[in-house]
Amino acid sequence: MEAELAELRRVFDGRWAQVREEARQALRRPDFGLAGDLDRDAHRQRVRELLLQLAKVGHSRLGFPTRYGGEGDTGASVASFEMLGYGDLSLMVKSGVQWGLFGGAIQALGTERHHERYLPAVMSLDLPGCFAMTETGHGSDVQHLRTTATYDPQTQEFVVETPHEAARKDYIGGAARDARLAVVFAQLITRDEGHGVHAFLVPIRDEAGDPRPGVRIGDCGGKAGLDGVDNGRLWFDRVRIPRENLLNRYGDVAEDGTYSSPIENAGRRFFTMLGTLVRGRVSVAGGAGSATQTALAIAIRYGEVRRQFDAPGRDREVALLDYLAHQRALLPALAKTYALRFAQEELVTTLHELQPADGLAVAASPAGVQERSAELPDVEKGSSETEDAERRQRELEARAAGLKAIATWHASATIQACREACGGAGYLTENRLPQLRADTDVFTTFEGDNRVLLQLVAKGLLTGYRDQIGDLDALGTVRFLADQVWEAVAERTSARGIIDRLRSLGEGDLRDREWHLALFEDREKHVLEGLARRLRKAGEPNADPFAVFNHAQDHLLRLARVHVERVLLEAFVAALERVEDPAVRALLDRVCSLYALSTIEADLAWFLGHGRMTPGRAKRVTGAVNDLCQELRPQALLLVEGFGIPEDWLDAPIAQGVEAQRQDVMHAHDEAVRTG
Amino acid sequence: MEAELAELRRVFDGRWAQVREEARQALRRPDFGLAGDLDRDAHRQRVRELLLQLAKVGHSRLGFPTRYGGEGDTGASVASFEMLGYGDLSLMVKSGVQWGLFGGAIQALGTERHHERYLPAVMSLDLPGCFAMTETGHGSDVQHLRTTATYDPQTQEFVVETPHEAARKDYIGGAARDARLAVVFAQLITRDEGHGVHAFLVPIRDEAGDPRPGVRIGDCGGKAGLDGVDNGRLWFDRVRIPRENLLNRYGDVAEDGTYSSPIENAGRRFFTMLGTLVRGRVSVAGGAGSATQTALAIAIRYGEVRRQFDAPGRDREVALLDYLAHQRALLPALAKTYALRFAQEELVTTLHELQPADGLAVAASPAGVQERSAELPDVEKGSSETEDAERRQRELEARAAGLKAIATWHASATIQACREACGGAGYLTENRLPQLRADTDVFTTFEGDNRVLLQLVAKGLLTGYRDQIGDLDALGTVRFLADQVWEAVAERTSARGIIDRLRSLGEGDLRDREWHLALFEDREKHVLEGLARRLRKAGEPNADPFAVFNHAQDHLLRLARVHVERVLLEAFVAALERVEDPAVRALLDRVCSLYALSTIEADLAWFLGHGRMTPGRAKRVTGAVNDLCQELRPQALLLVEGFGIPEDWLDAPIAQGVEAQRQDVMHAHDEAVRTG
Repeated sequence: MEAELAELRRVFDGRWAQVREEARQALRRPDFGLAGDLDRDAHRQRVRELLLQLAKVGHSRLGFPTRYGGEGDTGASVASFEMLGYGDLSLMVKSGVQWGLFGGAIQALGTERHHERYLPAVMSLDLPGCFAMTETGHGSDVQHLRTTATYDPQTQEFVVETPHEAARKDYIGGAARDARLAVVFAQLITRDEGHGVHAFLVPIRDEAGDPRPGVRIGDCGGKAGLDGVDNGRLWFDRVRIPRENLLNRYGDVAEDGTYSSPIENAGRRFFTMLGTLVRGRVSVAGGAGSATQTALAIAIRYGEVRRQFDAPGRDREVALLDYLAHQRALLPALAKTYALRFAQEELVTTLHELQPADGLAVAASPAGVQERSAELPDVEKGSSETEDAERRQRELEARAAGLKAIATWHASATIQACREACGGAGYLTENRLPQLRADTDVFTTFEGDNRVLLQLVAKGLLTGYRDQIGDLDALGTVRFLADQVWEAVAERTSARGIIDRLRSLGEGDLRDREWHLALFEDREKHVLEGLARRLRKAGEPNADPFAVFNHAQDHLLRLARVHVERVLLEAFVAALERVEDPAVRALLDRVCSLYALSTIEADLAWFLGHGRMTPGRAKRVTGAVNDLCQELRPQALLLVEGFGIPEDWLDAPIAQGVEAQRQDVMHAHDEAVRTG
Repeated sequence: MEAELAELRRVFDGRWAQVREEARQALRRPDFGLAGDLDRDAHRQRVRELLLQLAKVGHSRLGFPTRYGGEGDTGASVASFEMLGYGDLSLMVKSGVQWGLFGGAIQALGTERHHERYLPAVMSLDLPGCFAMTETGHGSDVQHLRTTATYDPQTQEFVVETPHEAARKDYIGGAARDARLAVVFAQLITRDEGHGVHAFLVPIRDEAGDPRPGVRIGDCGGKAGLDGVDNGRLWFDRVRIPRENLLNRYGDVAEDGTYSSPIENAGRRFFTMLGTLVRGRVSVAGGAGSATQTALAIAIRYGEVRRQFDAPGRDREVALLDYLAHQRALLPALAKTYALRFAQEELVTTLHELQPADGLAVAASPAGVQERSAELPDVEKGSSETEDAERRQRELEARAAGLKAIATWHASATIQACREACGGAGYLTENRLPQLRADTDVFTTFEGDNRVLLQLVAKGLLTGYRDQIGDLDALGTVRFLADQVWEAVAERTSARGIIDRLRSLGEGDLRDREWHLALFEDREKHVLEGLARRLRKAGEPNADPFAVFNHAQDHLLRLARVHVERVLLEAFVAALERVEDPAVRALLDRVCSLYALSTIEADLAWFLGHGRMTPGRAKRVTGAVNDLCQELRPQALLLVEGFGIPEDWLDAPIAQGVEAQRQDVMHAHDEAVRTG
């Protein structure tokens, strides 16, 4: 049994298992304990101190180039970030700001002169910084930020300016208290011409911690959660910075004010820059996963020990987890948590390969980036190798956007379900669920608003990742989309054939994996085709493209959702192949079925409405979900043990004292295996 | 236009409009302002001070008998409580503890000697108290509380005892800091015999605020929200109280220890006692509504002014509310908020009639209560008048349970949607959404866990309100239920006939109200019948009744949900009749259609799977919801104005500065009316 648990953890930990294990040792309590009842100032102070500790144990070096003292391991940096998600999420987010966003921007958007000068101090925390992109008036549409950086050839400086109140930088982590240097995103203007948004290094505080001249700093004050992160606001009143403070990998200004860039089109340039920062979204998806797992571990432990109501024929009151409604609230969420973990593992692996910390992302390097004109993509242009690298980069970005959205909504919903499943105890801070819920809440709207992200995913699918992401609103693109997609889908297998195939597959076992996969794949194709048909109208004469797109917005979101659901299922199926122990594989196979069938159940209206399922079979899907809940119930505790969260990290009173139950579960599991 | 707004507000305010208007005057800012950035101690102190203010302005007197200085107006007391829901919810909950739960228990469960001695001091807050029912080990199953009160005839005292750790009183509002007297629910034991749970007055603090001998008091510490409420824990170590401290309306102990009660069966007695306390659930449902309305008002105002992304053919960036996805996130929730308000109005009216503050609830008075044996109800027993009163009381309890569950889940979901719709701004405390979300979160599990409450509703429906609510687990009841229900449903119209009728109704306009009503009614009946069939198995020989019920638990919850959805629709339809202004009626008629169709859309799988709708029509339902969202979008602001929340109560920066937009909306509305 212990061997099975070890196998479960091995599969769950994945490729960066060693980093995870090191984190389990390094982040021991009480040193890395939770904030408890600190007020905001004390909490911020504690997070700052722990951040310094993290720098000392080497967490900060993982993702930076070896040349500057880093470890050069992108995947490890994400895995380590995810491990912080089991502790105080303020520390996780603050570390993400310092080393992911701030340090990551210098690394990805700067050049050698910036790396050499800043990266060592970024890693050691001698130079605390912040990432000043979002403005009060522009959050999702960052291409249209209003802050300006105007080049002055007289002094060879940029003049950074906040032109009006809505252009102030807002919600900036680290700005309110700690940051001395900011990566500021602003419209670059030189020789009276704008070249789009670029990143600039702007010192905002002096060594004593006072704001630099021309910089005004505000504090965002209280938030729903993440009280240990000092979010603030920044206003710039003609702040002068040296020309060299432009992070100039994708665009530079010569002493005389001449602008140059390896990417001519401003929009494409900006989205290429953003693409190099995709690690932030990948990390948020992973961190959300860790918080979700903690909540499930607490709620499922409590569901084992908490008993309520007598029942005829039972000599003890009934354990909460024995109630079907309780299983329904927690076990499908547990199954999806496994699916997300496996999809995240794939995503991090792709990121690791495409954006190696010691090199530059292929598509992100000036040499690798083929200039693409504002016109539509031309398959003849560029080498097929570059094409392929670009395609993979686009896929990575779309995958990161989709997983981030689905993983963070899943975190909100699941932690909420866990809190309700623990009743009054779940409302108390001592049991951690309130803090987990409040801290993760912003994940659904930061690092990209989830609904905006899903639209990016859908647009990527519509054009086979070829279009320039972000240009939904350009009339030309809209027309292109409509035509392009129509042609692509016209040749697809006829719907009749698919339906017949699904029906024949579906006559058998409801747990037939081939049927699940075919069902998910077909649904995605069908939704895509339907959407393409609707969007064609945007290309008709006198059409109002915005109205056409807007009417189809729910369809667009649906496409992205069903796409991510398929990605999760396929990742789960692939992970099953990596399981060596047959008993563990059988267990995870059931978990995979629960994920598949509960996902199907949530969308039964679609399957019924599109003839993919008969009413009789649809009813049996609900029965099958109930059966799987009851079959998996004895192993629910084992499954959360599989997350590998150390005992002293589950420091909620209601999660304690279940060792006896754990022994029972182990025993029950052994029995189940013995009897088949 | 102003006339229309006034009419909208009149309909929304309902029967206790004057109480609401008085509250708008009495609770002006800044005196009754929100807590802002106070720490927990300061927040508790502030709430205590405001509570005293409330006592001074007369809020506390509304629901108490005129004989003791009250106003004798049950409905007004609920309406006034609801108005507190627009402010600091800690104050609302604290007032509910003092005057609703604590004072209400003395009023409903005590007799004249208690009323005379305590009620004036309860109203004036000279006697702060708490309501100590829940224990760590028993929250939902309060019939099996473990605290004991054993009568000692030697001294004519009860000895109150916490027998073990899980029997401590937990989450008790007011216990940690302020309460001096507690209503303690404990198993009454006299002459070595238990008589079930009764309520006792136990002094817990002396005048100086120190715990009385034998009383240990703990603090629950931090919570997700409601920081201004001092929730605590209580342990009793052989605490002696006079015999007269038993709240003896439903059971008394004579000096010699003889027990007597007008209701012989202990279970029935206890549930009759609980029934007199139903106002708590009604109030929570209403308070949840107020918080939901505030969140919607903030988010919809922000959706009007916040713009993001250019669109072809538009000269300004697009307002968030113009996006279909944004409308979808907020407008169906807005429609349901109206539906809930109208259902709440009906519920409060019923409560007001059945539980007049100056009298006793009919079913709750010893005279009115017909003793019902532990056996199954006998229709022959008791007068038909008493029968009717009992039936109405059971209906009230079931209605209160159902609305409380649905209204509080709606609050959680809607406030969450509002917070996400406001992006980063929605995460800041200054914009109130985080506090609204955190404060209301516990509503789903306190005053009855929502899932447990919905099961009560379903059981009530199964037995036509005749069974003894709460005895799910008694084998006899289970068998009775199964048989009883089977007979009741066997005579129903055949399914074929219903389906034909629905299909023919459904061929026409999707907004046909008769079709909506028939669809909701038929669905409820069908779900009830299916459930009855499943539960029959519990009566078969060798059946495991718990297993049968447990397998059907999701079905039970579904029945309760679809029942409440029907109740909401019917309440909305009834409210439309009360609208005098034709333009307002037309507007609310659309809102009602949006409620009906978005509810149908959420359950399309059921309607399709049960042949109530063709796939083609199902698709058109989604289109109709989209159309209604777009039609109502120009009047979204007007609809939240209809809530009548004073401007200075919407003190969130993002909700300010919309006066210009409001004028636009008024204008657009006038235009719409003029052009048809």
